[in-house]
Amino acid sequence: MAKAWHLVRRPQGLPTIDDFALRALPDLPLEADQLRVRNHWLSVDPYMRGRMNDAKSYAASFQLDQPMTGGAIGEVVESAMDGFAPGDIILHMGGWRDGDTIGLEMTPTKLPADLLAAGMPPQTFLHNMGLTGGTAWIGLLRIAAAKPGDTVFVSAAAGAVGSAVVQIAKAREMTVIGSAGGAEKCAWVKDLGADAVVDYKAGPLVPALTEALDGLGKSGVDVYFDNVGGDHLDAAFALANDFARFAICGMIDVYNDGKPQEMRHLIRTIPARIRMEGFIYTDQFFDCMEEFYADMAGLIASGAVTMRETVRDGVEAAPDAFLGLFSGANIGKMLVRV
Amino acid sequence: MAKAWHLVRRPQGLPTIDDFALRALPDLPLEADQLRVRNHWLSVDPYMRGRMNDAKSYAASFQLDQPMTGGAIGEVVESAMDGFAPGDIILHMGGWRDGDTIGLEMTPTKLPADLLAAGMPPQTFLHNMGLTGGTAWIGLLRIAAAKPGDTVFVSAAAGAVGSAVVQIAKAREMTVIGSAGGAEKCAWVKDLGADAVVDYKAGPLVPALTEALDGLGKSGVDVYFDNVGGDHLDAAFALANDFARFAICGMIDVYNDGKPQEMRHLIRTIPARIRMEGFIYTDQFFDCMEEFYADMAGLIASGAVTMRETVRDGVEAAPDAFLGLFSGANIGKMLVRV
Repeated sequence: MAKAWHLVRRPQGLPTIDDFALRALPDLPLEADQLRVRNHWLSVDPYMRGRMNDAKSYAASFQLDQPMTGGAIGEVVESAMDGFAPGDIILHMGGWRDGDTIGLEMTPTKLPADLLAAGMPPQTFLHNMGLTGGTAWIGLLRIAAAKPGDTVFVSAAAGAVGSAVVQIAKAREMTVIGSAGGAEKCAWVKDLGADAVVDYKAGPLVPALTEALDGLGKSGVDVYFDNVGGDHLDAAFALANDFARFAICGMIDVYNDGKPQEMRHLIRTIPARIRMEGFIYTDQFFDCMEEFYADMAGLIASGAVTMRETVRDGVEAAPDAFLGLFSGANIGKMLVRV
Repeated sequence: MAKAWHLVRRPQGLPTIDDFALRALPDLPLEADQLRVRNHWLSVDPYMRGRMNDAKSYAASFQLDQPMTGGAIGEVVESAMDGFAPGDIILHMGGWRDGDTIGLEMTPTKLPADLLAAGMPPQTFLHNMGLTGGTAWIGLLRIAAAKPGDTVFVSAAAGAVGSAVVQIAKAREMTVIGSAGGAEKCAWVKDLGADAVVDYKAGPLVPALTEALDGLGKSGVDVYFDNVGGDHLDAAFALANDFARFAICGMIDVYNDGKPQEMRHLIRTIPARIRMEGFIYTDQFFDCMEEFYADMAGLIASGAVTMRETVRDGVEAAPDAFLGLFSGANIGKMLVRV
């Protein structure tokens, strides 16, 4: 019998394990336009925190006492949907569960057979070839319009999105400064090719970022890719070059608390003519999907873009994996292997 | 003998009268490519506060113990410069003084004789046809790309820039909510055509702006024109519609203090996909000068755009007029009549 995580309580601040319950799903016969799926990989992503609130946002709120949803890679076990056959490996939104019957509302998509045959691991479509890689690519190249020669600062550079930003930027001949917390993550970001790394746990960001820029002979930041908000964003304002572009992807620092962000350098928006823009992957993705897939598959094939995975085993581990995103437990992409 | 205000001390926080001294200028013979000018009108503008700091910015710092500069309307008394003759009325940057000999570095420009002959007061080129009107027009129409039907929120709507924004937006069939401090200013903003006015001195901004939007049957703000920063900017983040555009023109709330801005709603940048952009009039002006002059002269001639002037008399009054900008002493454009 398949099991799914249900949201049983809306979290106040940082979620806890008691906000979730793993419950058996009813064993229903397959209806027309449905697939029976066994999941292999589940994605946990910071954006899901917003869906746990009962607030208007771009993504609908999770309903209490209903199965949660999220990106997943599964195998079709039984098909009553045109174009799908048992054995197909699909990307779909019926995550947070080990399997289920799903319909079109879960947007099942077959993974490209040629890439799988060439050895691309299917879970790549949950990171570099999917939400996190696409977010990195769109934010850096479309929203921030980063170009060769730019100096790029990226926060949470050891995360799934940030590590993709570092590598795409390096492949495009930009200078890259990443921030990460602690020696191990910083070393990995450097290994990814970052020109400098700032350890945000080691001290205040403005002096650290200033030192990194000075060490590279750079006057300031042309592009900031924000995954964190708070002090990171403020440091980017402090050290932005004229006409800098900020792509605001996430503010993991402030998802769980209602505290105000104290911005000391926001006023530099005016003299430096900074453009800051928030974006959502799904707004942009379908406009540039083909270009993204072709470009990213090439970057992966050439070895220019890699990914480290932090894997938790078993559907039971999903909430723990999710909570780990907020304590920095992941290097690269956090995944659940079912 | 002509006299000019000199900056004699760099202000800490809010400037005081003791930071300035009115000193006689040497009586020099006119050199080639110079004009001898008698000033009639001097402009004081919030951006001048930034020039009083010894910090890198888009405009060079004022030098200590040197005459300050700023927009002025004067009359040519004696000319050694091609294209200028005694009696010409000019716009130039040799303000903060009653007269002087000036060269090309003060960018003297003859005012359009046809508009003066048609009765346009020359000081209009210090507001609606100049820096403040141009800033309003560029920020609203170019930076924020506001279009008919948009809901526009403008802070400091009783100021020189803000009052121009209100009127241009109404002429373009937008819905406009202005903020101002106190009943007199609010009444004037309403007279200008604003659909609703928020008195920021009467209580917190988020509930007041919510009520104003509700009263107009609007879901939120499509365009925010910021002259203030701080709580005003935060309220705009709180109540922005999806894909809202913020044109950041000024942050008069924070020019004089080093206190951080506490932003509770900045995170809405992401779910609402807000684009915020800082801009400087002089970056944009020469690209769109002809279009601006033609459009604004038409709006003024039709009565769609007017201006109230708060006038101080005598060159002696310049610092007091300038300081008044930070205590809300002006309705509309603050000017010094020499």
